[in-house]
Amino acid sequence: MTARPKTIAEIDTPAVLIDLDRAERNIANAQKAADAAGVKLRPHIKTHKLPFFAKKQIEAGAAGITCQKIGEAEVMADAGLTDIFLPYNIIGKAKLERLLKLHKRITLSVTADSAATIAGLAEVFADPTRPLKVLVECDTGAARCGVQTSQEALTLARQIDAAPGLAFGGLMTYPAAGAPEAAEAWLAAARDLLKQQGLACETVTSGGTPDMWRKQDAAIVTEYRPGTYIYMDRYQVEKGAATADDCALTVLATVVSVPTPTRAILDSGSKALSSDLLGLADHGELVGIADARVTALSEEHGKVELTGGATLAVGDRVRVLPDHACVVTNLFDEVYLVSGDRVVDVLPVAARGKLS
Amino acid sequence: MTARPKTIAEIDTPAVLIDLDRAERNIANAQKAADAAGVKLRPHIKTHKLPFFAKKQIEAGAAGITCQKIGEAEVMADAGLTDIFLPYNIIGKAKLERLLKLHKRITLSVTADSAATIAGLAEVFADPTRPLKVLVECDTGAARCGVQTSQEALTLARQIDAAPGLAFGGLMTYPAAGAPEAAEAWLAAARDLLKQQGLACETVTSGGTPDMWRKQDAAIVTEYRPGTYIYMDRYQVEKGAATADDCALTVLATVVSVPTPTRAILDSGSKALSSDLLGLADHGELVGIADARVTALSEEHGKVELTGGATLAVGDRVRVLPDHACVVTNLFDEVYLVSGDRVVDVLPVAARGKLS
Repeated sequence: MTARPKTIAEIDTPAVLIDLDRAERNIANAQKAADAAGVKLRPHIKTHKLPFFAKKQIEAGAAGITCQKIGEAEVMADAGLTDIFLPYNIIGKAKLERLLKLHKRITLSVTADSAATIAGLAEVFADPTRPLKVLVECDTGAARCGVQTSQEALTLARQIDAAPGLAFGGLMTYPAAGAPEAAEAWLAAARDLLKQQGLACETVTSGGTPDMWRKQDAAIVTEYRPGTYIYMDRYQVEKGAATADDCALTVLATVVSVPTPTRAILDSGSKALSSDLLGLADHGELVGIADARVTALSEEHGKVELTGGATLAVGDRVRVLPDHACVVTNLFDEVYLVSGDRVVDVLPVAARGKLS
Repeated sequence: MTARPKTIAEIDTPAVLIDLDRAERNIANAQKAADAAGVKLRPHIKTHKLPFFAKKQIEAGAAGITCQKIGEAEVMADAGLTDIFLPYNIIGKAKLERLLKLHKRITLSVTADSAATIAGLAEVFADPTRPLKVLVECDTGAARCGVQTSQEALTLARQIDAAPGLAFGGLMTYPAAGAPEAAEAWLAAARDLLKQQGLACETVTSGGTPDMWRKQDAAIVTEYRPGTYIYMDRYQVEKGAATADDCALTVLATVVSVPTPTRAILDSGSKALSSDLLGLADHGELVGIADARVTALSEEHGKVELTGGATLAVGDRVRVLPDHACVVTNLFDEVYLVSGDRVVDVLPVAARGKLS
């Protein structure tokens, strides 16, 4: 290992740079917005995968954190995070045993969207003095997981409520992007039905960075789980949820080839930027270089098309703003925290690759 | 850590399974085809990223291996591989120093497609008693890296030849998929021009699994660098380079939700399967389940659309044949070698995430 770089110029490429000032500003702004809306913030750590930032989010006022897989939650619990929501159906003996161990250490909650998931949880969680909080996942339009009707939500809530080692915690959704009203209407109807039947929803939780800035209706959503807001990315800028100056994550890359005047090749391909397009036309853009877009990726090459007179030379170092920040951090073992040109720290991506 | 699983049924999901019998058969078949064509085989390790299989490929008769990044080559050299080709422009002091160290340990060769790359190599490699072999990369139609004309190839070959610490090694291309004839015609013309000018091409190397089975013209291509052939994948089946029974890599997944009769959700999303579509319509198919396709991915969820009466239940375990095998192995810290239902070994993906 070489000595830790002191400035960005000393970092070998490809590398992930996190602008610490921007990330901290994004944390503060989101917390302020949530506080103003009277909604609890429970950031999703999938974007950064770092205990460092999870702690910063808690310090700023977050009610807890959200993880998607038990392995991520284990990393965060080991690092001292004490309140974790896992909005996932935990299935199978191996995972349920890990979940139980985790439940004994920290404040934990999960979701379920089927009788089978709840039955599995109820078999392992049997202590009525320390029940596991389970929320019912609702498909409010995203067509992923979740019950399809209020009536189904009621049926599952009753099943949870009847299990001695489980406690019904409320409703959870991951809404369709751009359609928060529909999700809230769905949740309100389900919450009201459950209330009529004597089942109070302590928590109604929604997520997604693109719609986080809209005025939350605190009468429905009590908790919000944005992830990307801490780093932002090209997709969020496209959706109007961020400006380019909010984007904290870039990939530092080197131009390794300029085969033609309008084509430059970076040492950063899909292994650095991922193939996630999220519906955008290109795979990224070069910070500060107008008309330079990453138009194609192979595993170790990123093809940049230069238009409008932009030029690049072999050896040039550039910063790529990727389409999707969350998937980029899963591809690197470490990230560089920077402030201006200065390297503040190098952090291992502790929760990277935690798939189960 | 739990004990190592003895059978597939004991493996927690998501997990990468490698059918050892199929992989070994694929290695043998490719070597046989290369031998019959009189072409050297130099497999690209990007697909498996495992010293275990690199050694098997050498034992089967490969002339050496191909790596794309220095970090991969370092892992392979540490594991005892002694002849490595890096078809990449190595740029910058940090990488050149690592390259020099590697060159002192093993037989190494690289490519260049610009005067700047060659000048950088020549500055660090100055020992005429142990010159670094450098091939000129040619853009024969794939529109990625590479010189655009025979004349440019000649200019660079002369520059390499004139550098005391470098030796001109020949021509390299990564051809456009499905157009090997055009690539070979390009290479033949360049080789002939260089020969006229007194520069012999010891090696003319091409790559890509989809076209590897076509009759190689050994009078042009002397060495071939396929990667995916060891595992094969859905893309290779689509291209006619493999059958479903050749595919050695699958992702073992669990059904975590069945929100509607025609929609099942797997615990394997883009963090397990990657977002690489390679032009295919879906993200994967379920082995042995007709009419079940992975139609959408988010990071931790894979959406399966069930048509034609196929059914899945929460807790079912399935094997997904992904579109692109190489990018999947980069997402997992370990892979399970299996033979039938038996787990033969669990191997760390030693060259995973080696981006520089």
